[in-house]
Amino acid sequence: MLAQIRSIVGEKNFSTRIADLYTYGFDASIHHRTPDVVVQPRTTEQVSRILRFANENRIPVLARGGGTGLCGSAVPIKGGIVMDMTKMNQIKEIRVEDLYCVVGPGVIYDKLNEALAPYGFFFPPTPGSGEACTIGGMVATNASGMRAIKYGATRDYVLGLEVVLANGEVIRTGTRTIKNSSGYQLERLFVGSEGTLGIITEVTLRIAPKPKKSAMAVAAFDSLEKAGRCVSAIIAKPLIPSAIELMDRICIKAVNKTMHVGFPDCEALCLIEVDGDPKVVEDEVKEVHTICKEIGAISVEFSTDPKQMAKWTAGRKAVLPALSRYGDEYVSVSLADDMSVPISKIPETVVAFQKIAERNNVIVGTYGHAADGNLHTKMLLNPLSEESWKNGEKAVAEIFEAVIAVGGTVTGEHGVGISKAPYMKKERESILGVMKAIKQTLDPNNILNPGKLMEWEGSIIRYLRYPCRDFA
Amino acid sequence: MLAQIRSIVGEKNFSTRIADLYTYGFDASIHHRTPDVVVQPRTTEQVSRILRFANENRIPVLARGGGTGLCGSAVPIKGGIVMDMTKMNQIKEIRVEDLYCVVGPGVIYDKLNEALAPYGFFFPPTPGSGEACTIGGMVATNASGMRAIKYGATRDYVLGLEVVLANGEVIRTGTRTIKNSSGYQLERLFVGSEGTLGIITEVTLRIAPKPKKSAMAVAAFDSLEKAGRCVSAIIAKPLIPSAIELMDRICIKAVNKTMHVGFPDCEALCLIEVDGDPKVVEDEVKEVHTICKEIGAISVEFSTDPKQMAKWTAGRKAVLPALSRYGDEYVSVSLADDMSVPISKIPETVVAFQKIAERNNVIVGTYGHAADGNLHTKMLLNPLSEESWKNGEKAVAEIFEAVIAVGGTVTGEHGVGISKAPYMKKERESILGVMKAIKQTLDPNNILNPGKLMEWEGSIIRYLRYPCRDFA
Repeated sequence: MLAQIRSIVGEKNFSTRIADLYTYGFDASIHHRTPDVVVQPRTTEQVSRILRFANENRIPVLARGGGTGLCGSAVPIKGGIVMDMTKMNQIKEIRVEDLYCVVGPGVIYDKLNEALAPYGFFFPPTPGSGEACTIGGMVATNASGMRAIKYGATRDYVLGLEVVLANGEVIRTGTRTIKNSSGYQLERLFVGSEGTLGIITEVTLRIAPKPKKSAMAVAAFDSLEKAGRCVSAIIAKPLIPSAIELMDRICIKAVNKTMHVGFPDCEALCLIEVDGDPKVVEDEVKEVHTICKEIGAISVEFSTDPKQMAKWTAGRKAVLPALSRYGDEYVSVSLADDMSVPISKIPETVVAFQKIAERNNVIVGTYGHAADGNLHTKMLLNPLSEESWKNGEKAVAEIFEAVIAVGGTVTGEHGVGISKAPYMKKERESILGVMKAIKQTLDPNNILNPGKLMEWEGSIIRYLRYPCRDFA
Repeated sequence: MLAQIRSIVGEKNFSTRIADLYTYGFDASIHHRTPDVVVQPRTTEQVSRILRFANENRIPVLARGGGTGLCGSAVPIKGGIVMDMTKMNQIKEIRVEDLYCVVGPGVIYDKLNEALAPYGFFFPPTPGSGEACTIGGMVATNASGMRAIKYGATRDYVLGLEVVLANGEVIRTGTRTIKNSSGYQLERLFVGSEGTLGIITEVTLRIAPKPKKSAMAVAAFDSLEKAGRCVSAIIAKPLIPSAIELMDRICIKAVNKTMHVGFPDCEALCLIEVDGDPKVVEDEVKEVHTICKEIGAISVEFSTDPKQMAKWTAGRKAVLPALSRYGDEYVSVSLADDMSVPISKIPETVVAFQKIAERNNVIVGTYGHAADGNLHTKMLLNPLSEESWKNGEKAVAEIFEAVIAVGGTVTGEHGVGISKAPYMKKERESILGVMKAIKQTLDPNNILNPGKLMEWEGSIIRYLRYPCRDFA
């Protein structure tokens, strides 16, 4: 069988070397599982032939982009073939006059935006992992980022897809027009399906003109709850910023320690970005200042200097790695990392997270794209301690319960994978039957990323990447 | 059976009167077919019970909103039950601080915007039939309108749905958060499915702050091709207007004759709207003026006066009815009425339409939401002449061929129904198998709006509403 797979992609796009297999068993989550073979297809035809072969032989296939996912979507828990899509990284068309571009699934987010920049255009979702994540991966998880409040998520930009189905059949769904009502909008069904319904081999994306100017404010608060209220107050104005990033004391402390960004030493801060026409940006920055002060900000600092803004942004982006250097015995893990709630529920939700952390004796750093209600947390655990994992697991369950209770979702932009599967199943109880039926229809032999989402069974701390026994 | 259906909805929400049945056999298309019974459910529970009953007894069920569809989506070609959803018209929640509202499917578009206006918010798609069409119908057809270029289509606003499946099961898909990656995005699969996969009983919509100001320009051109080039030039600037409406000589003449709007007497005009912050609107209007002049506009007139803008908008909206008064023997019919092409293809497409009309000896009025590439045409036919219908049908086929050849779609916003079904099947050949498989999975007894979309067989001039023999 390996010989047949190799013959489809060619020797240099195929590997069963132990080091490769081990490496391809990771994504950026806490999970790991070694696949049996790794391939790097170059064409849709190759993807089709591999799937046809895998389908006939009931071999699991997992399509993988940049491997930046935080919840195990790209971890091949059933072994089989990992299909690394990063070589299908051609930018095929940029048509600014028609507001779209056509790209291979392996194109990296930042690379696409570099290619669009000379035209004055961009693909807006702005994921935190933009330097490394691929467009295919973004489609598969409905990824977004700090600018979703103003610009939407990946789902809002997918005009069309080429997809290879489990049986190797190639379909083209959607259009190259700004809108269509022509048949089922399958392109939007494949968005967020995490490689379980088909493998994306081409993406047609709507693109948008880049804003002419942006400005940022850093507002410091003496409580997380006030920072949360600041977010709601800005949106309710209504003032739609391009981003509001929230960081709690733990995140601020971690970033200031490692990055020397000089964020104010406070309980919580909001990093607020507005963008658009220079005249409007100026007015909106003033409005933001007024609102922050009304809520009781300790300090509000502004900038339109690209260097200062880049420094602040880098500080915010450093939260995730910085938290791993919080204390010697701790590792920052992605558990309950991507909740989204109705915007007005942020204050009570962040306060609830703090109480849950205290009650369960875990350290939780809370940050995230608060403007659209998307909160990230990172737990600091001792990865070698069974107790630490158990505490973490309990805190996760309570956090998701709190989020669902206020009408939120367990994942706003990262996807379900493994780490959120049991809680997605609670949140989405009424659609699990339809999800299973559609999966069964499109992938009757269950070869595409099997065992994930609604199929997941067991604890979220199975398949741990850490060198400790599998507690769960 | 009728007695059982009556007992579910109650006497006053049930009818088998000939006049009612005849009336409910129409939508705004050229098609007609009388159903067997009409019901007006008031609750999700009633919808569920009717579907369970219909599914057990293999009775076709067609959910109907305002009946404003132009392609026969709401014509019950297989008879059975027409389910008029207009009594489920409650606006259940308006949460501007969370940027969403929750409504029954029977809420009328304009009524929703009236309710949102006091908060400074709106639901942007702006369908031409906004006075009468329902939110449920908009979701079912992925409706939009003149503002899609800037604000997107209905699909971009659907955060969540309550849907009753064919077997009566009630599911809730999506969230009340701005974004989610939690399980399959079924809400976006139901968008545009035209009542063939389930019946929508509640819609959660994202809402947006209303722009503070708008301005309009009317630019007159001596050729349709130049007007088309004007559209492309504005978008490519890039300048994203809130709308560009295109009207050809036939439409201008018809509107001026019936409405006295005083549009310039020319070959083609663009009605360009920009909106947003007052300062930006002022700058953009100047840019629009420059671009129109560069393309060679004969005249460009501006206004920010709400009365003048309303007059122009009314003129544009009057195209459809006005065309019916073009000449005594003619009726304006919706055939090939909703093509969408990549924006830069508008000039060659509109020229192609003119040639096709001449070649086939039919009068075609071309107008539409040109900014997003969406062109409407109306054919003026003698409804009592078989030859006229045959000419029309031939012109339709050629128009759709031209549209597909430039990468366009047969329907941008109206849906497929009957009138576009054979051409949608050509356009979407590669996904018909998946569409059928999903339909079969969710509606195994094929009771939901049967015979439409991919199931349609035969000519588009079957089931004609006109008092002439069924030519096809």
